[in-house]
Amino acid sequence: MAAMKWWGWGQEGVAFSHEDKPELRDFIRAAVQVDVAQRGKPPIGFDALEVPAPALPDDLRAALVDAVGAEHVSVDDLDRVVHMRGKSLRDLVRTRRGDLGRVPDVVVRPADEDQVVAVMDAVLAADAVLIPFGGGTNISGSLDAPTDEERPVVSLDVTRMDRVLEIDAASRIARVQAGVYGPELERQLNAQGWTAGHFPDSFTHSTLGGWIATRSSGMQSDKYGDIADLTRAVRVVTPRGVLATRPVPSTSTGPSVREMILGSEGRLGVITEATIHVHRVPQERTILGYLFPDWPRALGAMRALAESEATPSVTRVSDAPESAFSFATRKRPTPLDRVKSAALGQILKRKGIDRHQMCLSFIGFEGSTSHVKQQRKLVAEVIKPFGGFCIGSSPGQLYDQKKFDTPYIRDFLLDRGALADVSETAAPWSRLGELYDATMAAARAQFAQLGIPGWIMCHLSHSYHAGACLYFTFAIKPSGTRDELEEYDAVKSAIQQSFVDHGATLSHHHAVGTEHARWLAQDISPAGVALLEGLFASADPGANLNPGKIVSGESAPVPLRPGTRS
Amino acid sequence: MAAMKWWGWGQEGVAFSHEDKPELRDFIRAAVQVDVAQRGKPPIGFDALEVPAPALPDDLRAALVDAVGAEHVSVDDLDRVVHMRGKSLRDLVRTRRGDLGRVPDVVVRPADEDQVVAVMDAVLAADAVLIPFGGGTNISGSLDAPTDEERPVVSLDVTRMDRVLEIDAASRIARVQAGVYGPELERQLNAQGWTAGHFPDSFTHSTLGGWIATRSSGMQSDKYGDIADLTRAVRVVTPRGVLATRPVPSTSTGPSVREMILGSEGRLGVITEATIHVHRVPQERTILGYLFPDWPRALGAMRALAESEATPSVTRVSDAPESAFSFATRKRPTPLDRVKSAALGQILKRKGIDRHQMCLSFIGFEGSTSHVKQQRKLVAEVIKPFGGFCIGSSPGQLYDQKKFDTPYIRDFLLDRGALADVSETAAPWSRLGELYDATMAAARAQFAQLGIPGWIMCHLSHSYHAGACLYFTFAIKPSGTRDELEEYDAVKSAIQQSFVDHGATLSHHHAVGTEHARWLAQDISPAGVALLEGLFASADPGANLNPGKIVSGESAPVPLRPGTRS
Repeated sequence: MAAMKWWGWGQEGVAFSHEDKPELRDFIRAAVQVDVAQRGKPPIGFDALEVPAPALPDDLRAALVDAVGAEHVSVDDLDRVVHMRGKSLRDLVRTRRGDLGRVPDVVVRPADEDQVVAVMDAVLAADAVLIPFGGGTNISGSLDAPTDEERPVVSLDVTRMDRVLEIDAASRIARVQAGVYGPELERQLNAQGWTAGHFPDSFTHSTLGGWIATRSSGMQSDKYGDIADLTRAVRVVTPRGVLATRPVPSTSTGPSVREMILGSEGRLGVITEATIHVHRVPQERTILGYLFPDWPRALGAMRALAESEATPSVTRVSDAPESAFSFATRKRPTPLDRVKSAALGQILKRKGIDRHQMCLSFIGFEGSTSHVKQQRKLVAEVIKPFGGFCIGSSPGQLYDQKKFDTPYIRDFLLDRGALADVSETAAPWSRLGELYDATMAAARAQFAQLGIPGWIMCHLSHSYHAGACLYFTFAIKPSGTRDELEEYDAVKSAIQQSFVDHGATLSHHHAVGTEHARWLAQDISPAGVALLEGLFASADPGANLNPGKIVSGESAPVPLRPGTRS
Repeated sequence: MAAMKWWGWGQEGVAFSHEDKPELRDFIRAAVQVDVAQRGKPPIGFDALEVPAPALPDDLRAALVDAVGAEHVSVDDLDRVVHMRGKSLRDLVRTRRGDLGRVPDVVVRPADEDQVVAVMDAVLAADAVLIPFGGGTNISGSLDAPTDEERPVVSLDVTRMDRVLEIDAASRIARVQAGVYGPELERQLNAQGWTAGHFPDSFTHSTLGGWIATRSSGMQSDKYGDIADLTRAVRVVTPRGVLATRPVPSTSTGPSVREMILGSEGRLGVITEATIHVHRVPQERTILGYLFPDWPRALGAMRALAESEATPSVTRVSDAPESAFSFATRKRPTPLDRVKSAALGQILKRKGIDRHQMCLSFIGFEGSTSHVKQQRKLVAEVIKPFGGFCIGSSPGQLYDQKKFDTPYIRDFLLDRGALADVSETAAPWSRLGELYDATMAAARAQFAQLGIPGWIMCHLSHSYHAGACLYFTFAIKPSGTRDELEEYDAVKSAIQQSFVDHGATLSHHHAVGTEHARWLAQDISPAGVALLEGLFASADPGANLNPGKIVSGESAPVPLRPGTRS
């Protein structure tokens, strides 16, 4: 698979469109006062970028060529710009403007672990900086070098290491190279009847190594577990040699070094390989749509499901604004759709459900036919007291088909002058109601404070014993009188601050990077940050490995405080 | 609860006995040529111990008194001896001999976290050594100071901090002080309708903080998870302040500091509090006995269960030697027992099962009546192709009643001149057969090499997606011509070496301590060890916190190599 667009999400030629969704234009106009039929400002052209010449010392270049071969050492401008940063909203806005930040001096593509070791040696010998790069989908600023970095910056692209090396059928584990993209991983596993079951939103463009380095979570993690659960062993090239753990199911070997690699964002080394859980492709797999009368009851139902003996593979429910958005992205209806829609209208009327309050939910089931049947029955029983009911498989199928398209919407909106982004978190069940209310209020207060149109919506996904993830999506139409990133910051910061003020974490599955680093001490306490600082400093005394991420270094700008005007 | 016997396991006055088990004397005579009706050498009397006077500088003593109050600063000889080490076989043999090692200079008992902070400050100011002490049940040498430690040694007994502080019913989590013993934790939770579901063999005498510090696993962990899974948040007094994480269900805040505390054995600080999963006491709870024709089929059935849609709360199966041992510990039969036994004999005969090969299994079920019923049916279907069948609830009830008595057997045998111990591990399913065969052979080769009677048996417990725990119990009758610990070492080392030689880990749930430290580099690789060394050195630059555990420091003696004779 080719790398993503240098200026936006996904493959060249693929884009989100409102044109086949008759209700969407009006919906967005009402939400953020943007007419999506009007194109705004396109990104700067590549030729207009001022890409600095690579500053690559001859001896480092020679060592890298020795390590991976000349054809895999690239100083090409486009290649370096693609590897310059991830795809956060901040990244997209800056790149579209031509604000390049610290472009890496070279991109190297090792073929195997031995070559990664050789690259590591070369980088350390030259006191350069090494930044591992998988699919480049990170949205937390985990991939860019500090802007003032004066040492040579080497982007280590792992995507040539893309093979499933071995499947242990009895143990249901697979040894896999870390650079494999999601679809290619599933293709190789499916060919032998297996699946990894890990489907983050970024699935099509992200890699196994990236999932591990950021503690990723997938849409079906309720069944398959987060990447932290399904990663049984890792191989990591570190400054002290190759760290290799064993694929044992559980162990008490002191603080787990396997777990330290999870979420390490390149600061401890380069992940080259992992042994992960795999499952037989299930006999049956279905995602059904459900409706709840309102958000409090929807939340209550998800909590009750987590406590029940039901074990669905997906539990997800949107609040009323996100449900309305989902319905607004429907394509032009067929005559059958119209009949269904009319029938649903009758049901809502009979049940006394307010369309402006109702919440759309997806619940998934996997396994044997008898298991799926029994689970559907259990779920129906659990959610009934909360007014929840099934609306069939069509919404679920639609969700399943378009789930990986969502990230394209940000580019679509940026093209039209609106900034959209996501912030997600996790908290105990008891705090989700308060967290939701406070976060919605905090964002809306910022919209008012800034005097700009704004929109925010939310869904719950990833249910656990003790709590769940809340995933917020927000959009603003910048005023045009301030730097749009300053206005974005004010909203994003208010949301993140609300998370940590209400018992939640800075991110459930998007990592810390530089974007969330300023909330880390509030989340894991200053002593927790000190522990991480000590770990990184001892493992990487020269700060050669992706410096500035997670702790210290470049944190995002201080939030715009109420009353502050620039 | 009072602390354990200074010379052995559990409470004074409680002991294992063969007298109510008519078959056991012959069984043990056949196994290790020891007649348990003959008492051997009792432990040395306490008065005969040469307990060194405490070397406690006045300013440290004053600071400790300031911290916790004079009545909770103890330099009493018995108190110090009880806190000197854990209860490994090596510990027991040494203590019984009067070989005291490095006795702590003082035992302090803080009442709360603030007092722990004050103790930490006092210890660091005095450049002393701090060793956190819960129930003292550790069997891996995690609790003793290095024998050559010249600084004052402070044992911090956490057991006054024993309260459930708060139950969050909606989130099914409880905030609990780390010094609570297992039974007291369950008592406080049960009173409100909850259970933690964590039942290690040491349950009656171990504490929550100890479970976390050693990555403990319980008998019902198949359902409730290992302590690593059910610990949602920790509070830890560290040299850099109180480390506090949030009880979020999942998070991506870089390498998890919560996870670094798991298994940290006091090297990062003193765990004062944890937030753990709790569950409603289930409607129904049962453990049933099953029989399998032989070990390969028993292993196959456990693997098939892990892959199936069945979710039992306990999966455990003994090999043929351990099954025979279990049957030999039966009490004097009632008339009803005789009838049952005769009926079972008929079944075995009809099925063509060899009593010398058959394997006894316990499978547990919990939940609603309908859930338990359905699960029993699922399990029966899965194990049928492996020749497994249910033999009712009596064996399971017996197991459930006597499960916490097992550790007393070591003292019983030591009193009679035999050394018995356990070594346990975990490995992928695909390797369990080979691991079992090799480990049994390795132990038996050592018995032969040493020319001493020996016995080894095993059970599988704790099933996971990718593998399971194998738990070996072994016993020897020392020759009397060498130091008995040298002979013990030879056997224990051969078993541990077999673990790491066959893809398994040095310990599934007994931690590293000093006992297993010499296998750590083989298990997690030298780079993994280096990562841990860096973590500890940066978190505790003065090496004041339980030095020498997990990495470096006092490792156990080098194993006796074949051909070596002393």
